[in-house]
Amino acid sequence: MTRFEADYLVETGYDLAVAAEAMAGEQSSGTFLPVPGETPELKARAAARVERIEEMGEVAAALPGAGKGSGVVRAAKVTLSWPLANIGPSLPNLLATVAGNLFELKYFSGLRLLDLRLPVEFVQRYGGPAFGVSGTRRLTGVQGRPLIGTIIKPSVGLSAADTAEMVDLLCAAGIDFIKDDELQSDGPACPFGDRARAVMEVINRHADRTGRKVMFAFNVTGEVDEMQARHDLVETLGGTCVMVSLNSVGLTGFTALKRAARLPIHAHRNGWGALSRHPSLGFDYVAWAKLWRVAGADHLHVNGIRNKFCESDASSIASARSVLRPMFAGGPGCEAMPVFSSGQSAAQAHDTWAALGSVNLIHAAGGGIMAHPGGPAGGVESMRAAWEAAVAGVPLAVAARENRALAQAVGLFS
Amino acid sequence: MTRFEADYLVETGYDLAVAAEAMAGEQSSGTFLPVPGETPELKARAAARVERIEEMGEVAAALPGAGKGSGVVRAAKVTLSWPLANIGPSLPNLLATVAGNLFELKYFSGLRLLDLRLPVEFVQRYGGPAFGVSGTRRLTGVQGRPLIGTIIKPSVGLSAADTAEMVDLLCAAGIDFIKDDELQSDGPACPFGDRARAVMEVINRHADRTGRKVMFAFNVTGEVDEMQARHDLVETLGGTCVMVSLNSVGLTGFTALKRAARLPIHAHRNGWGALSRHPSLGFDYVAWAKLWRVAGADHLHVNGIRNKFCESDASSIASARSVLRPMFAGGPGCEAMPVFSSGQSAAQAHDTWAALGSVNLIHAAGGGIMAHPGGPAGGVESMRAAWEAAVAGVPLAVAARENRALAQAVGLFS
Repeated sequence: MTRFEADYLVETGYDLAVAAEAMAGEQSSGTFLPVPGETPELKARAAARVERIEEMGEVAAALPGAGKGSGVVRAAKVTLSWPLANIGPSLPNLLATVAGNLFELKYFSGLRLLDLRLPVEFVQRYGGPAFGVSGTRRLTGVQGRPLIGTIIKPSVGLSAADTAEMVDLLCAAGIDFIKDDELQSDGPACPFGDRARAVMEVINRHADRTGRKVMFAFNVTGEVDEMQARHDLVETLGGTCVMVSLNSVGLTGFTALKRAARLPIHAHRNGWGALSRHPSLGFDYVAWAKLWRVAGADHLHVNGIRNKFCESDASSIASARSVLRPMFAGGPGCEAMPVFSSGQSAAQAHDTWAALGSVNLIHAAGGGIMAHPGGPAGGVESMRAAWEAAVAGVPLAVAARENRALAQAVGLFS
Repeated sequence: MTRFEADYLVETGYDLAVAAEAMAGEQSSGTFLPVPGETPELKARAAARVERIEEMGEVAAALPGAGKGSGVVRAAKVTLSWPLANIGPSLPNLLATVAGNLFELKYFSGLRLLDLRLPVEFVQRYGGPAFGVSGTRRLTGVQGRPLIGTIIKPSVGLSAADTAEMVDLLCAAGIDFIKDDELQSDGPACPFGDRARAVMEVINRHADRTGRKVMFAFNVTGEVDEMQARHDLVETLGGTCVMVSLNSVGLTGFTALKRAARLPIHAHRNGWGALSRHPSLGFDYVAWAKLWRVAGADHLHVNGIRNKFCESDASSIASARSVLRPMFAGGPGCEAMPVFSSGQSAAQAHDTWAALGSVNLIHAAGGGIMAHPGGPAGGVESMRAAWEAAVAGVPLAVAARENRALAQAVGLFS
């Protein structure tokens, strides 16, 4: 019988086996009192199973509300499995099963979903990213190096014409990729249609000049019909990417967009901090990103080295590696392109290359490009030069002596 | 200019005014470096504003990754406001604005969204609950007391026919409301259509007998088109309620269902623990529930007194009170019916009445009804008798002397 598996970090003052069985019960056929219908046959058919428990030692109680148990709290990695027949290959029902009520169980003073292993039926149904790394490279004409990207700043407050003017500057500077900010979608102050038309007029003009089209991720976040209409407008205008805020639209809104989409979907994870920032609660990125990879996210945000947020470098790199790693042996790997963004500049190229060992990323710098002393052209040049040096094994300090834009970036951003 | 407001609990080692301005900047026109376009005029038009800061004293640093600042961490309640023109009355874009990147800001070792105040444009667009308390009472014919409800258990593993058999027992027992478990939607082991047909045949038969139709909340959680088709099937079969797992479907999938819905939507909050369980991170229920109330959730889960989960009684009651409180002075109040569920039985009626002061709730007991010594009929009778006594001011112990089913419930569940 086909099953799916989930790994958890748990912290409990109770016997680990008892606590793990309580999780399995709560998320399948059990409840807090024995009920007559839970027969051995039914359990064999439908119950979640505790597959493994790896004890990890004593910890302090992290979250309030848990029962005391023995008073000594231990951490463990617990793996549960479920029959696919309980839910079928349905992502929303998978989420309710692997990440539902169990976060509230009294047994646990810590519970975090670490990873998922899904049967191929999921990708057979959802399809995964339609573009991913190779499709994004094909549409942008960028090979053998990261896409150098930026974000429209100020995030909000610019009119459609202001935005197009900035895009003009960035296209002239040689940028590969631009995105709307996640705060800018379709407010009365900058209506989506006006912005898309103004921006694509500029991008198409530069593409005619250079033969290479800058990819602009238009933030289509909104209701399902709005997202679909905005996607279609972008396509009609010759655009090559749409963006959504994953936590705002949710899994089923995303899937509704994806199903009819003909452009790559740039997946913004704003709100992710609420799901992940306490290390004993919520989600590891590896698990959470798998849901969106199966659903079809082409680009996924991962912060980056020395980002402006709370995330450590090791965590950002682990996230990026995970979305580049194939998910299904027997089907599409659902590899997504990691987006390094948040306090980025040319100064992080070498360390990113050293840690990631891949050029399959979008390296997006806001201030790192817009606030470069040489203007956006200097910013873009500095980032390209830094990556070229990094991949060629030329140290940053050496490369900076050869390239004024890079030297300026190192001076300002290091 | 119309604005919306959000209240936060923040914990920071930095100067409170500086940290609050950083939040406001990150969530509107600012970024980590000054950018040329952020003019005073643009800020006046589009920037978030720090409305109030109430200092709350020193606390220990709760979450990792924050910068140290002065080293002394202080808590405060911070209120920000934004121009509605930035986003328009769009719930997904509201969420990206009030609960986006800010959870990851280095300034904060704690950040939680406490409450929201929205302009009436939101409810003008989304409409709020179409049924709420009064519509649910009208459809069930229950007035002046809580709806007594239960959950199909075992949650998973029953066939459609098994489920219908249990519904038959519960209808005969005089139940008002039954719900699918959140783990049971449309798996191959119990296909939705088979279950809906089998269950509604039973419910319709009992309704013909009693003149009162039991409300069954069918779990339609799935992709948008699936939810819509399942809703329509339930309506065709004479059913009166559908249920969705909010965190599984997300805001835009929910709204897509709601827009075409002609039945009340029972909103299950499984996964809520991940968003709320650390008191310095995520969401207070008051704020989170407002999003779903505006979107149109008719019933909202709140756990309950002495629930089986980690939540305190005070927190459950505060949640229930909040969803019954009108949200908009000038428009629909978006009142939703609170659902008390999780380890409930007749033993909690008195304390629930004393704390809530309202009978506008669904009181759902799984084991409290199914595992009652007198069977489901005893379970339902015990809960009705307990509520009647509670509202009449008759103490539980006194009422239990008059009613065998209640005495049995008190004996087993207290």
